[in-house]
Amino acid sequence: MPFTVKALQKTGPDQPFQITDIERRDPRPDDVVIDIKAAGICHSDIHTIRNEWGEAHFPLTVGHEIAGVVEAVGENVTDWKVGDRVGVGCMVNSCGKCEECRAGQEQACVEGNIGTYNAIDVDETVTQGGYAQKVVVNEKFVLRIPDALDFDVAAPLLCAGITSYAPLARWGAGELKDGKPKQVAVLGLGGLGHMGVKIAAAMGAEVTVLSRTRKKEQLAIDMGAARMLATEEEDFFADHRGEFDLILNTISADIPVDRYLSLLKPRGVFAVVGLPPEKQPFGFGSVIGGNKVIAGSNIGGIAETQEMLDFCAEHGIAADIEVVDAREVDAAYDRVVAGEVFFRAVIDTSTLASA
Amino acid sequence: MPFTVKALQKTGPDQPFQITDIERRDPRPDDVVIDIKAAGICHSDIHTIRNEWGEAHFPLTVGHEIAGVVEAVGENVTDWKVGDRVGVGCMVNSCGKCEECRAGQEQACVEGNIGTYNAIDVDETVTQGGYAQKVVVNEKFVLRIPDALDFDVAAPLLCAGITSYAPLARWGAGELKDGKPKQVAVLGLGGLGHMGVKIAAAMGAEVTVLSRTRKKEQLAIDMGAARMLATEEEDFFADHRGEFDLILNTISADIPVDRYLSLLKPRGVFAVVGLPPEKQPFGFGSVIGGNKVIAGSNIGGIAETQEMLDFCAEHGIAADIEVVDAREVDAAYDRVVAGEVFFRAVIDTSTLASA
Repeated sequence: MPFTVKALQKTGPDQPFQITDIERRDPRPDDVVIDIKAAGICHSDIHTIRNEWGEAHFPLTVGHEIAGVVEAVGENVTDWKVGDRVGVGCMVNSCGKCEECRAGQEQACVEGNIGTYNAIDVDETVTQGGYAQKVVVNEKFVLRIPDALDFDVAAPLLCAGITSYAPLARWGAGELKDGKPKQVAVLGLGGLGHMGVKIAAAMGAEVTVLSRTRKKEQLAIDMGAARMLATEEEDFFADHRGEFDLILNTISADIPVDRYLSLLKPRGVFAVVGLPPEKQPFGFGSVIGGNKVIAGSNIGGIAETQEMLDFCAEHGIAADIEVVDAREVDAAYDRVVAGEVFFRAVIDTSTLASA
Repeated sequence: MPFTVKALQKTGPDQPFQITDIERRDPRPDDVVIDIKAAGICHSDIHTIRNEWGEAHFPLTVGHEIAGVVEAVGENVTDWKVGDRVGVGCMVNSCGKCEECRAGQEQACVEGNIGTYNAIDVDETVTQGGYAQKVVVNEKFVLRIPDALDFDVAAPLLCAGITSYAPLARWGAGELKDGKPKQVAVLGLGGLGHMGVKIAAAMGAEVTVLSRTRKKEQLAIDMGAARMLATEEEDFFADHRGEFDLILNTISADIPVDRYLSLLKPRGVFAVVGLPPEKQPFGFGSVIGGNKVIAGSNIGGIAETQEMLDFCAEHGIAADIEVVDAREVDAAYDRVVAGEVFFRAVIDTSTLASA
C-alpha cells in the first residue's frame, strides 16, 4: 500500500516550505524503505525549487543527500536488512543495461538516470526528495553508510562528497609523481570545495585552496590544506604559473579559464564541477601548449559512491555542517545563497514529526 | 668548422623564398650531421614565416619535417652512424633535466624546448630549419626512419604524424570497448587529419571523417575511414548525438564547441590539435554532463615520435604527398593555404643543388 510521510514541500518557486503529508509508493519487491535521519541542503535543491534551472514540477519536495536506517525491504531484496545504516544520493534508478550503466556510470545512463527528485519515475509519478521522514528506493541505488560516520555529517557525502571525490580519483590526485605528492588546487571553499580539500588531502595530495580572499585560511588548513592563496592578489596568476597538477573548480561563477589553465603544469587537468550559467571562452592554445585537459565531472556511479563513503570513513572525513530544524529551511536557503553556511546545512528530519 | 649549405630563405614576411647559402654550426661531439633528402611543408612554417604568429627572426629558413641520411657524427655519438636513415621533427634540444624531459615529454620542457627553426639555440644563434641541404642536430633529437618508409612520405610524419598519433594513443583510440572498436571521428581532412584517419584506423578504431562537405569521401575511405559525414548537412548534430568516443579536431577555424561535445558519448574526449586564432566559448555543462574531456595535444616527445614512426612502418602508413621542387615553394604555400594540396607538399631538397 502507498503510505504518507511528513515532508517539506513547496507549491511554487516563490512559496515558502510547508510541512505536509506526501505519498510514498507501495514498496515493490526490489525496494527498500528508509527512515530518514538527516537530509543535506545542496545548492542544486535551491536552483531546482526556485525554478532557476527551468520549470520544476510542483508541488515538490527536494533533497538528494539522504542518510537513514532501513525500515523495511521488499521480498526480493537480499543486500539490505532492517536496521542497516544507509544513504541515497542524486539518483534512484537507471536503465541498468546501457554501456554506461554496465560500466558503473549510472549517472551517465544513456536512457537518462532517474533523479531523486523532480524526475519522472518508472511509474510516471514525479520523484520526491529527501526532506521527508521516509523514502522508498530501489535496492540498487541504496548506499551503505559506515558506522564511523554519523548520519548528519554523512548525508552531504552523497552529493557533495562524490562530486568532489570522483574527479580527484579519476585524475589521480593521490598518485605520487616523481615520488612526491601531487599539487592539487581546490578553487572555491564551499560545500563542494571543503569536501574536495579533505578528500584530496586524505588521498595524499598537497592541497592549495584558491579563493578570492584568504578569509577562510585557518579553516582550510584545519581541513588538511597546505596553504590558501587569494586569487584577487596582484600578480596571483603570474606568481603561481605552472604549479598545479590538478585544479578542481567548484565555483559556479564566470572564471578566466585561460588564466587558470596557465596555473597547471604540463599534462595538468582542470576539472570542473561548478556550473557557471554563461559559456566560458578559452583559447585552444591554452590546452595544446602543455597537453592540458579540461574535464567535466558529474557526481559518480553507485559503486564509486560506495567507495567514497568507505574512503571517508577510513580517513575520518565527513562534512562540516550546521544542523537545521525542519521549520528553518527557508532561512537556511537564504544563508546558503549568501555564503554564510560553513559548509553544509543539514536538516534534522526528526524535527518534521513535531512540526 | 662551421660550413655552408644551400637553403630556402626569406628575408621578410612578404619576400619570396630565395635559394642562398646559410651557415650550419661546427658539429659538436654530440651532434649528428644529416644530409636532407626531403622536407615537408607544414602549415606552421607558413604561419611563422609570414609573421602570422608574431615577429619571426629574419633572414629565416623554416621546415620541421625533415628526412635524410646521417653524413657525419660527433665523437661522442654512439646511437647513430654514417648512412643511417633519420629524421628531425619540431625540436632540436631541451633541458633534459626537468620533470617533463625526464617523463619523455621534451616538447613540454619547463625551460622551453628549442624549436627546429626560429628559436634561440644554446649558442644564441637562431635555429634554421629543414628547407636546406643539411642540418646539424643533437643526437638525442634524431629519429630513426624505418626502411619501409621512403624519405618523402616519411618527412610529414615528423610533425603531422606525431601530432595526430599522440592524442590518439593517449586517449586509447585503439582500445576495445565492450569488445568492439572505439568510434573515432577526425574533424578536418587536411595534412593532420589524413594522418589521423590512417593512424586511428591502423590502431583498430572505426573512423568517421567529419568535414563541411563529403567532397573527399572516397579519399577518406581509401585511407581507412568507415564513412564520411558532412557537418553542414541539416540536422547533422542532432542525428549524430552521442556517437563518438573520441573526436580529433584538426581544423584551425572557429567551431561550435558545445555542439561537437554533444557528439561524444559519456566519458568521450574532444582532442584539439588545430589552433583557431580566437577564443572558443563553451558551457561547462557540456563537459559536466557525461564526464567529458577537452584535451589539448602538442606534437609528442622523442620516444613517442620514434614509436609513431615504427608504428607507421609496421602498418604501411605514410603521408599522401605532392613532391615540390625547391623553386616552387612560394606557389606551393599558396596552394596549401587554399586547401588544394592533397595532403602534404614535400620539398625534394635535392633540387636545391641545381637551383
